[in-house]
Amino acid sequence: MNYPMGIKKYNNQIINYSHRGMNLEDDINQTNEYYRSKDIAYIYKKPTPIKVTKVDFRKDRTSTIKEAFYEEPSTTDYNGIYKGYYIDFEAKQTKNKTAFPLANIHKHQIKHLKNITRHGGIGFIVVRFDLLNETYLLKDDDLFSFIENNERKSIPIKYFHDKGYLIKEGYNPRLDYLKIVDEFLEVKNNGKN
Amino acid sequence: MNYPMGIKKYNNQIINYSHRGMNLEDDINQTNEYYRSKDIAYIYKKPTPIKVTKVDFRKDRTSTIKEAFYEEPSTTDYNGIYKGYYIDFEAKQTKNKTAFPLANIHKHQIKHLKNITRHGGIGFIVVRFDLLNETYLLKDDDLFSFIENNERKSIPIKYFHDKGYLIKEGYNPRLDYLKIVDEFLEVKNNGKN
Repeated sequence: MNYPMGIKKYNNQIINYSHRGMNLEDDINQTNEYYRSKDIAYIYKKPTPIKVTKVDFRKDRTSTIKEAFYEEPSTTDYNGIYKGYYIDFEAKQTKNKTAFPLANIHKHQIKHLKNITRHGGIGFIVVRFDLLNETYLLKDDDLFSFIENNERKSIPIKYFHDKGYLIKEGYNPRLDYLKIVDEFLEVKNNGKN
Repeated sequence: MNYPMGIKKYNNQIINYSHRGMNLEDDINQTNEYYRSKDIAYIYKKPTPIKVTKVDFRKDRTSTIKEAFYEEPSTTDYNGIYKGYYIDFEAKQTKNKTAFPLANIHKHQIKHLKNITRHGGIGFIVVRFDLLNETYLLKDDDLFSFIENNERKSIPIKYFHDKGYLIKEGYNPRLDYLKIVDEFLEVKNNGKN
């Protein structure tokens, strides 16, 4: 399988672009750190699942992994707690300017988000259109409804304009997505509108 | 740092004892699978955090990790959703027969559990006394209260008898800990009693 977001190959060395500030994962991690530092929410990125096959064990009880492989994650990348609610989401970026290819999200991740929603959690995806410099939050229900009602293999950007929420980018937090979650919660708790 | 629970060294090969059925992690994973298969709860073990330092990239876009190191987890091992509640816990086993050494749980994991509790989540630890073949669930508040009121570096088994809940072991699910969480929820939702 492919290597995780933010990791790129260069002369067989690993370059982690997440420190450049243009990376979605980095922006979300920084935002989550901000939320934790202000005691607002405790949301973490799950570690990338890696299958370890060879380890060099040492006497000092440290050990070096000598062979391992990236595995496909069985859930989404981010989860945690906000205002007592279970929060769960996946974040992806695309170079496409007109649509978000659904191939970016695994089927079992969509199934996972459906399970979360059915059990009272708050699920969504965060999609960054790199070349437009726009990042949208799309709620679970709107994601599922697109998939069920469309044959298309990608979500056109118009759907994000209509149903998604543009996340404002700032300095700190860089990507204040919980502001949008607050809007859902208000609707959820006050009934319709 | 030490290698994760269930992984043991034998002639520099990795032996995963989690398939023997005597391993706590294995029992919890099997129980969580059972909960998922019955649509009861969606609780997962987080992958072990690993810092990758060398990767062999191939043309077919697969890649082999050639050097990596185990990192210390910043949160607990398990989290997920049950009946709309955010669930978070750490699981540990000990060969000690009379007490659970607190060194088994990192300070930042206890801080994490405190954050979760303060924000309305349900946090606890699961402790297996290997040689007694007994597994207890200890609620967040009872864990914090012991730590705050005691100088001791380990929790005596009497405290588990008094404040903890013995988890019944079965065939499927092997360790039905959500039955105990149901008791908390009843108390939480019906007030005292």
